[in-house]
Amino acid sequence: MTQSDAASAHALEFWFEFGSNYSYLSVMRIEALAAQYAVPILWRPFLLGPIFKKFGWDNSPFVLQKEKGMYTWIDMTRQCEKYGLPWTRPTHFPRSALLPMRVALLGVDQPWIGAFCKRIMQLNFAADREIDNPEVVGEVLTELGLSPHHMIEAACSEPSKLRLRENTQTAMQLGIFGAPTFFVGTGMFWGNDRLEDALIFAARSRQGKLSTPSE
Amino acid sequence: MTQSDAASAHALEFWFEFGSNYSYLSVMRIEALAAQYAVPILWRPFLLGPIFKKFGWDNSPFVLQKEKGMYTWIDMTRQCEKYGLPWTRPTHFPRSALLPMRVALLGVDQPWIGAFCKRIMQLNFAADREIDNPEVVGEVLTELGLSPHHMIEAACSEPSKLRLRENTQTAMQLGIFGAPTFFVGTGMFWGNDRLEDALIFAARSRQGKLSTPSE
Repeated sequence: MTQSDAASAHALEFWFEFGSNYSYLSVMRIEALAAQYAVPILWRPFLLGPIFKKFGWDNSPFVLQKEKGMYTWIDMTRQCEKYGLPWTRPTHFPRSALLPMRVALLGVDQPWIGAFCKRIMQLNFAADREIDNPEVVGEVLTELGLSPHHMIEAACSEPSKLRLRENTQTAMQLGIFGAPTFFVGTGMFWGNDRLEDALIFAARSRQGKLSTPSE
Repeated sequence: MTQSDAASAHALEFWFEFGSNYSYLSVMRIEALAAQYAVPILWRPFLLGPIFKKFGWDNSPFVLQKEKGMYTWIDMTRQCEKYGLPWTRPTHFPRSALLPMRVALLGVDQPWIGAFCKRIMQLNFAADREIDNPEVVGEVLTELGLSPHHMIEAACSEPSKLRLRENTQTAMQLGIFGAPTFFVGTGMFWGNDRLEDALIFAARSRQGKLSTPSE
């Protein structure tokens, strides 16, 4: 095991999608919580659409399953109230998010990743705005002091598109079936409701590791 | 509004199924938690099968959707550890539970309802035993000091069978799509993860009611 493998075994892999409402809750909460547990975050943007297609669904289960969909919006209102987050039910759901997902992939190891993801999520789920266009993404990048022209060009390059497809492929291979999903080593935790459990698991793994005599 | 309506508007309706693993978690936790919040429980046994059939599914989504199913057993192991509950993955899932569901319906207003439901759930999810037969249900009733012969006869009567069908019909009309589901008045809360939220909501509704000047 390399030093990097050892580090990531106690980190939290965060698999998310900008179109996913429950990913919104986790994107808004994860940085403060992970800091509290002293667990590093590994950002893993991926596309939910191809995963749902594999199950034979041509849309979100919240759209395909009327009863569950109706409940989801009530649940989101309550959850946002609980967490003190702004909430507007999107007039268009799920929103396409290809461009911001590709930009996020450029930033996974950059200090601006958290702020970028939060801002895109707020546009979708609090401001009820479309997020899959260069104007909106450019606006966010400018706010963060980044170069919109350069970043959007890089995001639309073939290697960048390929990278998002590869991440989505990896998500499938890992058995991911929804978002958000967290991994600590090989341990999967599904849904915003399990974010705290995943962080506790990661923090305990690290402590266990540190306390072994061989360290 | 009658006194009984007013009371039930601040009570917790608990919709559950003995075959449902997440209902197991709630059955084991609900009495102690509801007592803590001083919220009365209204027990509402219903059948999940006809609800799933309405969605075009001939089995539990945990069986039909391989990835989600695999995750569910990992999640159950963790959740049971978190709550300090015994857990054995059932060798047969989901288990048929017609007879114990009908017996539970006879007991919804009786002091033994909680103990009966817990015991049936433990047989399914801790002892890995079949639960849909007169021997096992009779065993549980005897342990509770009830007459197995009399109770099972009553449970198998036509009015009793009809009552379970009616409860399931009501569940469909309420938009229930899984178990456990909780209602506080018209407010739906889905899943064991929302039990605490539902109780807090019920307790707050009651306090609001009590503090109005007209009371």
